Amino acid sequence: MSTLAERILGGAAGTYLDRKIDTAYAHDGTGVLTLQAWEEMGGGIPAHPERLQILFDHIVPANNSTTATLQQKLRAFSKGAGIRFSDCGEGICHQVLAEGGIIPGNVVIGADSHTCTLGAFGAFATGVGATDMAAIWASGCIWLKVPETIRVDLQGRLTGAAEPKDLALRYVSLLGMGGATYKALEFTGEGAATIPMDGRLTMANLAVETGAKAGLFYADQETRRYLAASGKDVDDAITQVPEEGKYLETLAIDLADIEPLVAVPHRVDTVRPVADVAGLHLDQVFLGTCTNGRYPDLARFAAIVKGKKVVVRTVIVPASQKVLIEAASTGVLADLIGAGCMVGPPGCGPCLGAHLGVIGEGEVCLSTANRNFLNRMGVGGSIYLSSVSTAAASALTGEITSPEGI
Amino acid sequence: MSTLAERILGGAAGTYLDRKIDTAYAHDGTGVLTLQAWEEMGGGIPAHPERLQILFDHIVPANNSTTATLQQKLRAFSKGAGIRFSDCGEGICHQVLAEGGIIPGNVVIGADSHTCTLGAFGAFATGVGATDMAAIWASGCIWLKVPETIRVDLQGRLTGAAEPKDLALRYVSLLGMGGATYKALEFTGEGAATIPMDGRLTMANLAVETGAKAGLFYADQETRRYLAASGKDVDDAITQVPEEGKYLETLAIDLADIEPLVAVPHRVDTVRPVADVAGLHLDQVFLGTCTNGRYPDLARFAAIVKGKKVVVRTVIVPASQKVLIEAASTGVLADLIGAGCMVGPPGCGPCLGAHLGVIGEGEVCLSTANRNFLNRMGVGGSIYLSSVSTAAASALTGEITSPEGI
Repeated sequence: MSTLAERILGGAAGTYLDRKIDTAYAHDGTGVLTLQAWEEMGGGIPAHPERLQILFDHIVPANNSTTATLQQKLRAFSKGAGIRFSDCGEGICHQVLAEGGIIPGNVVIGADSHTCTLGAFGAFATGVGATDMAAIWASGCIWLKVPETIRVDLQGRLTGAAEPKDLALRYVSLLGMGGATYKALEFTGEGAATIPMDGRLTMANLAVETGAKAGLFYADQETRRYLAASGKDVDDAITQVPEEGKYLETLAIDLADIEPLVAVPHRVDTVRPVADVAGLHLDQVFLGTCTNGRYPDLARFAAIVKGKKVVVRTVIVPASQKVLIEAASTGVLADLIGAGCMVGPPGCGPCLGAHLGVIGEGEVCLSTANRNFLNRMGVGGSIYLSSVSTAAASALTGEITSPEGI
Repeated sequence: MSTLAERILGGAAGTYLDRKIDTAYAHDGTGVLTLQAWEEMGGGIPAHPERLQILFDHIVPANNSTTATLQQKLRAFSKGAGIRFSDCGEGICHQVLAEGGIIPGNVVIGADSHTCTLGAFGAFATGVGATDMAAIWASGCIWLKVPETIRVDLQGRLTGAAEPKDLALRYVSLLGMGGATYKALEFTGEGAATIPMDGRLTMANLAVETGAKAGLFYADQETRRYLAASGKDVDDAITQVPEEGKYLETLAIDLADIEPLVAVPHRVDTVRPVADVAGLHLDQVFLGTCTNGRYPDLARFAAIVKGKKVVVRTVIVPASQKVLIEAASTGVLADLIGAGCMVGPPGCGPCLGAHLGVIGEGEVCLSTANRNFLNRMGVGGSIYLSSVSTAAASALTGEITSPEGI
């Protein structure tokens, strides 16, 4: 039995191949660049528009007239070409895809580095640049090398206030940024089975922070449960984990050892226990992104701040309209607003520093996102990355605070 | 009996006087400029910080690191000087002031042109520039000329789908932009008594579009009702309307003649019946601002779109956190989100074209705001101004649509 990546792509690690894609998508940022490359290649209608999607999420609604004009052009192209289109406010591309259309075994290419998020379903999902995406528009296929695979063997169960995000920060710190470059990660073991789908999406999301091409979970009961609503089925052939010898190496993690963690500026792999940085003054807390902007994330944050008041600028941006509608219908949204949080329209929000909550010189943000690179969320600002519970506990105190015991 | 403006300011029209202010406020935009002027004047602690307020509303949360850094400096100054401070997400300055602290007879100066909004309470409320505001920081007083007054005599009652916003567009079109420069407007007559406080705020808000220094309603039962919750009382001396001879002129309007109207690009006084422009394609609808971002506005919009789907990019920005909390608690927010609207954090939103819903070249926005100047909401875009009901009806069709009969 070969690795999951090998089975899905249909070749042994190291093989170069052309592979038909099931779904390929771009957002407003890379979509504009893809369209430009496409026009330089001659333009027209893509070869397989039914396999393509354009989803606006990076700067929604537009922050200035240049952005709005570029979005207008891409919107018109998508509709004219028959490409499935999601407009401003429908959500982050990876989350909208996670809400329907992706099944285990799919090959999914996105013009965004965090496309690896969809590996949570046992799909081979990876990011490319805009020129590669234009080539996919031309052919409906992608040319790539089948990656070798590192196994991340998860045993035990998370305890206390530890969340899958803390586990994700831990594996990134153990592998290191660049430690898995052009490898696939496969999350296996009894511990993997204990993680619900939203946590798997969080964990797969951070795979690229190690340099990995993809981060895959094997489809199981939880996958079937999540997909049941959409009527999608799971092919048994891709549920079976191969023998260890197929892997390049194995990283073993006992989930019981995981505690609330924070990635400190300016690297995702520089991770410390929350206790080590507790008390650090915050200027902003940010809940959202393709990492931690799903309904269970909003609900967990709300459960902590409900009936209290945040004492620091707190920006919440749901990952999708579906997430927001659920939060509105269950009272979670009212709890967040009542606690004094600012809630923005679904999208990427301040994660990339383009609008809606950019931080100033010398300011510090505790964020549930996936990247804390220097200047990313504002020139001269510092970003700490944490779980949802740590972010919520900290919003109530205005400083980095452990969620243990609250 | 003199005019209300004369009584409040304490001098006859044409008199120059120094007047103690009751409240003076600036926002993040003008506050930064006020602080700069203040520092050039020597800086330090203002003379009467207890009369001052700083409220962040124009670009909240910050759109880039320059904005965030400027806000950080102004925030620190406000707190250090003991100036009452409202941070990002608490709401538009005029609305936050309308929710408490202003009583009939007050002199209220804001570093924003739409400070005239607060004339709805029978306060003399007017806007100044940042340098004048710095002088207020120095003295706690303002030097000004008492304006002559134009009476806007309102008779009858609004019918059908007509709203106070339509009435406001009508009086602006009759007086013309600049038609009341440095005059006060006083809204009198039986028709004025029929307009609820939120509608009075809308009407007073547009006074400056005629060039007026202020737009005042006489305090009455509705004023007492609105203020009762805050325990504030009304001085009988300022409830009495003078004889007509005290006014420079009188503009009479029969409310029964008002129909749904639209101000077409690029002047607020170029007003047409909705029927004349019905069918015009829209790229965006915007509900919000100090003109029409209050709870009754959101509720009226929600009543029209509830259970349906908007077919055009629809941006909703509540005027304050209090408005948003009420909308969340009553289900109005869930209805708006369920209909596919994007809801932003309380503030000015895209009104001034600074962020969060700027329109592109050639795009058309139907807005509930107060200004449709060329390039205001995006370079090369066109803005049409309407009531809340017209905006809601149009969001469901994607083109300008009359709210009559829906």
